[in-house]
Amino acid sequence: MVNFSDRMDGIRASDIRQLLKLTQQPDIISFAGGLPAPELFPVEEVNAAFNAVMAENGRVALQYGQTEGYAPLRKHIANRLAARNGIHTDPDHVILTAGSQQGLDFIGKLFLNPGDVVVLESPSYLGAINAFKQYQPKFVTVPTDENGMIMEELDRVLATTENVKLIYIIPDFQNPSGRTWPLERRKQFLDIIGKYGVPAIEDNPYGDLRFKGEFQPALKSLDKDELVIYFGTFSKILAPGFRIGWICASEHIIEKVNLIAQAAVLQTATINAMVISKYLDMYDIDEHVAKILPVYKHRCKLMIDTMRETFPEEAKFTDPDGGLFTWVELPDYINTRELAAVALEHKVAFVPGSGFYPNGDVNNGMRLNYSCSTDDRIVKGVQLLSDVIKGALR
Amino acid sequence: MVNFSDRMDGIRASDIRQLLKLTQQPDIISFAGGLPAPELFPVEEVNAAFNAVMAENGRVALQYGQTEGYAPLRKHIANRLAARNGIHTDPDHVILTAGSQQGLDFIGKLFLNPGDVVVLESPSYLGAINAFKQYQPKFVTVPTDENGMIMEELDRVLATTENVKLIYIIPDFQNPSGRTWPLERRKQFLDIIGKYGVPAIEDNPYGDLRFKGEFQPALKSLDKDELVIYFGTFSKILAPGFRIGWICASEHIIEKVNLIAQAAVLQTATINAMVISKYLDMYDIDEHVAKILPVYKHRCKLMIDTMRETFPEEAKFTDPDGGLFTWVELPDYINTRELAAVALEHKVAFVPGSGFYPNGDVNNGMRLNYSCSTDDRIVKGVQLLSDVIKGALR
Repeated sequence: MVNFSDRMDGIRASDIRQLLKLTQQPDIISFAGGLPAPELFPVEEVNAAFNAVMAENGRVALQYGQTEGYAPLRKHIANRLAARNGIHTDPDHVILTAGSQQGLDFIGKLFLNPGDVVVLESPSYLGAINAFKQYQPKFVTVPTDENGMIMEELDRVLATTENVKLIYIIPDFQNPSGRTWPLERRKQFLDIIGKYGVPAIEDNPYGDLRFKGEFQPALKSLDKDELVIYFGTFSKILAPGFRIGWICASEHIIEKVNLIAQAAVLQTATINAMVISKYLDMYDIDEHVAKILPVYKHRCKLMIDTMRETFPEEAKFTDPDGGLFTWVELPDYINTRELAAVALEHKVAFVPGSGFYPNGDVNNGMRLNYSCSTDDRIVKGVQLLSDVIKGALR
Repeated sequence: MVNFSDRMDGIRASDIRQLLKLTQQPDIISFAGGLPAPELFPVEEVNAAFNAVMAENGRVALQYGQTEGYAPLRKHIANRLAARNGIHTDPDHVILTAGSQQGLDFIGKLFLNPGDVVVLESPSYLGAINAFKQYQPKFVTVPTDENGMIMEELDRVLATTENVKLIYIIPDFQNPSGRTWPLERRKQFLDIIGKYGVPAIEDNPYGDLRFKGEFQPALKSLDKDELVIYFGTFSKILAPGFRIGWICASEHIIEKVNLIAQAAVLQTATINAMVISKYLDMYDIDEHVAKILPVYKHRCKLMIDTMRETFPEEAKFTDPDGGLFTWVELPDYINTRELAAVALEHKVAFVPGSGFYPNGDVNNGMRLNYSCSTDDRIVKGVQLLSDVIKGALR
């Protein structure tokens, strides 16, 4: 009866969110989510931090606050960006967001007119694609190999495409592929975007979750042209339930993000920012991350080893150095959206790959999450999935 | 250097948010914010609720959750809508938002193409105007009197204006005017929007804060055509620091809001929704609201009485039955944006009225907040303001 806006034509339910609902039945082994392991959440420490905030400053915590977010937390973030990521920033160039997803919405809103082009890795994060779709852009994808985006292809795309307003990338343990860019590619990338003057979102939710291989510097730490808009979050290193992430960018971008945040949401939750800030005062978050890493390393290895043992050779998969995901590619003739329905009947779930391709033209990928399953369920689930895949082979 | 989207041309800093920054100096008496009184926040009770959530269900509270929000809280909201507002709804027709501001962003995004028309009361809430501006609409305002929107004018506007996609109203203790619509106008309004088939946001953040006069039913409770999109929030009856509000609407609208929420933010903070839900399990929120009302009643009366004593007769003001604000109209030749700068020099702050007129064509209004000041400061601040106003009279 009522008429919705034109943008709603392009906005559909996310495969992941729909799947997450189905997979809450305990008899289903789900590799579909992107959930951190809840048994590792520092519940007691968070509770202690909350109690301290309420005792010291409860009325401030429950009141409205400033749009850019609680200043001591932004200072913590700036300090940690310098210490761990080599990013030297003024805390005033950091704004809190309700998770990185809200950052994607804000940056899409900031840059995109209908018909503008967003450049993405192929595949790229489904949630980013969905966030940008709200602003009716065109998507142009750049092919990737085992080292991430292929820079010659990026150069070619930027040389031959008009109205490129934004590039979106995840250089560390990409979602969905689990791949990481080596240093050389990072430098090439910055040279190329500098040449064309195109801003880029460096989304880095997983960077701290490296359990093998060598640290790679953030693009933002090497960015002389102030084109990199860096996204971080507490969702994967502390807890997603707070919905606290951040954007770090140069002043002329951050001040515009602030205007959008004012108009769209006023501010992130005061109390959440204060509790995380107090947690960082009271505890060493790097010690906490150090407890997560061996668990994820073990689960990743167990999943990869079991896939090596049981998957047919037609299934290719990545062996990530960190993060939450591995990515499987099946023969072209297998549509993993159909396969996911069969898998659910066999009580195992994954996210079919087509949602990670903005133009929906690749259908043989599968994203598997290993961070949130027990050993038993990883082995059993991979075995079930292996049978499902074998049943689909010609 | 980088190119922002066209919509950014219309997005400016909010007067209120900028003023709030200035008015944090303790020597300034500020009537500028829209803050609830922090000394009334139930800090101990919230702390007890948090501790209970962490003890019983800490891992769930810190994890991702569903886009529509924590189900038991949505059930609490549906129960309270039935008991207090006469709105009988399925909890699945309620979606949590990060405060009502996020709801405004979502509904603007859902309905508005550039150039579409939003109809507003004149004056209307500045934060709603700013949220909608992100989607580049035209605004058409409907004149108001002491009983709110004038219905003959609304009928005329809808009969003569093309592309009206949305009406935005605050029928209870409006922001900024403090005015409330009587029942007869509510019925007329529903007849008129039913005739033209235009959806309306009923924003009701203050409805529970009635300290005199007679309860008026929510438009949504009388809405047979399913055109009313009802907004509520815990910000004014519990605490704004959580950023938890909600939208209640018919199914075909809520399912689209859910898609937007997925794309824009994934979900509200799990932990915040669970703590509020637990608070509602453990305590009677209506008993808490009953403690707020006499305080706000007293502060409102003190402000109005002091204005009656000290303001020149050229200043007209409203005498609200609830909510947080009174609204002052000065002679046409006084520009209150300029007056606000003078007032700040005299250590008193208010929000100048022009921001509440989307087309910026009325400049003689002032919004005053009484909920968040002590008696001393109310009396002193009104006296200071009175002197400032007298100095501007011809």
